Amino acid sequence: MKILEEKILKEGQAIDKDILKVDSFLNQQVDVELMEKIGKEFAKHFENKNITKVATIESSGIAPATLTALALNVPLVIFKKQPSKVLNDEFYSVETISFTKRNTYNLIASKKYLLKDDNILIIDDFLANGEASSSAMKIVNMAGANVAGIGIVIEKSFQPGREKLEKLGVDVYSLARIKKLEKGIVEFI
Amino acid sequence: MKILEEKILKEGQAIDKDILKVDSFLNQQVDVELMEKIGKEFAKHFENKNITKVATIESSGIAPATLTALALNVPLVIFKKQPSKVLNDEFYSVETISFTKRNTYNLIASKKYLLKDDNILIIDDFLANGEASSSAMKIVNMAGANVAGIGIVIEKSFQPGREKLEKLGVDVYSLARIKKLEKGIVEFI
Repeated sequence: MKILEEKILKEGQAIDKDILKVDSFLNQQVDVELMEKIGKEFAKHFENKNITKVATIESSGIAPATLTALALNVPLVIFKKQPSKVLNDEFYSVETISFTKRNTYNLIASKKYLLKDDNILIIDDFLANGEASSSAMKIVNMAGANVAGIGIVIEKSFQPGREKLEKLGVDVYSLARIKKLEKGIVEFI
Repeated sequence: MKILEEKILKEGQAIDKDILKVDSFLNQQVDVELMEKIGKEFAKHFENKNITKVATIESSGIAPATLTALALNVPLVIFKKQPSKVLNDEFYSVETISFTKRNTYNLIASKKYLLKDDNILIIDDFLANGEASSSAMKIVNMAGANVAGIGIVIEKSFQPGREKLEKLGVDVYSLARIKKLEKGIVEFI
């Protein structure tokens, strides 16, 4: 998505070979007009997949996922990160590693809003190692529902996330795919 | 806001005299069409206040705040909850009590996206004791910016939040104001 790549080149900060900060339009501050365009782009890509719900992971996924759900005219389900184990049979829970934050959390989702005949589009801000997205897929599968696809705003293609998700047989659609990062330099595929 | 009150009566679960669960359209699952109407209503109420940015608190405030920012055509800034003290001069930080979760967290916001001449509309999902909203106000004030108003989706008017915020001299606009809760019963003002 050209407008997103241009925004990344203009405002993104490549800190080192692994870290890209996009605080000015996605993580701390959100460019909601850009998110609306992103939502419409995801909706267009997945429009023939009979999506029944969009799901996302708190909290940086929520803004783009809200506008994707609005464009598709379906509800949004929010998967939450809990530091400690949730012993509660109202929730699905999957232990998840965060490489970025170097910790482990439980990704949880209310059982009530994931139904057997749901066809879920998962939206997230970043794809790196694919831990969060594959935990989200596990939760959808625990509900007996189908993952119709995964929409990613920014993919770090030099990390193994995409390969991992594609092995699970899912359509991964990323709006910006980064081939290489270096301090001050961003290269797209 | 009539459509919101009707949704609360239809889908909200009054657990006891303090707790209202609105998991089906605001907290676990999000009715994005309703959030769009909510965003437009906040935008209409505050349209003459020269709002430069919308701010919200992760994570249930993000969906309604995204659609308010979109309706006002301004950026959104997300204030985040950190369990431990953030010793980092890139962030404003205010220690905050959560009565609901019976814990304390640090509400933080990047200094970069709050400027002296900003006129901020704070949006949040619930107003109860006013702890989160008044911490958000403190952060805006730490930046030397102005709080133009506070928009709340659901106010528990029997708790002291509104009084606390009004004493700080701010315009609080709540879309649903609950006078009384009892198991199975919700009464509006």
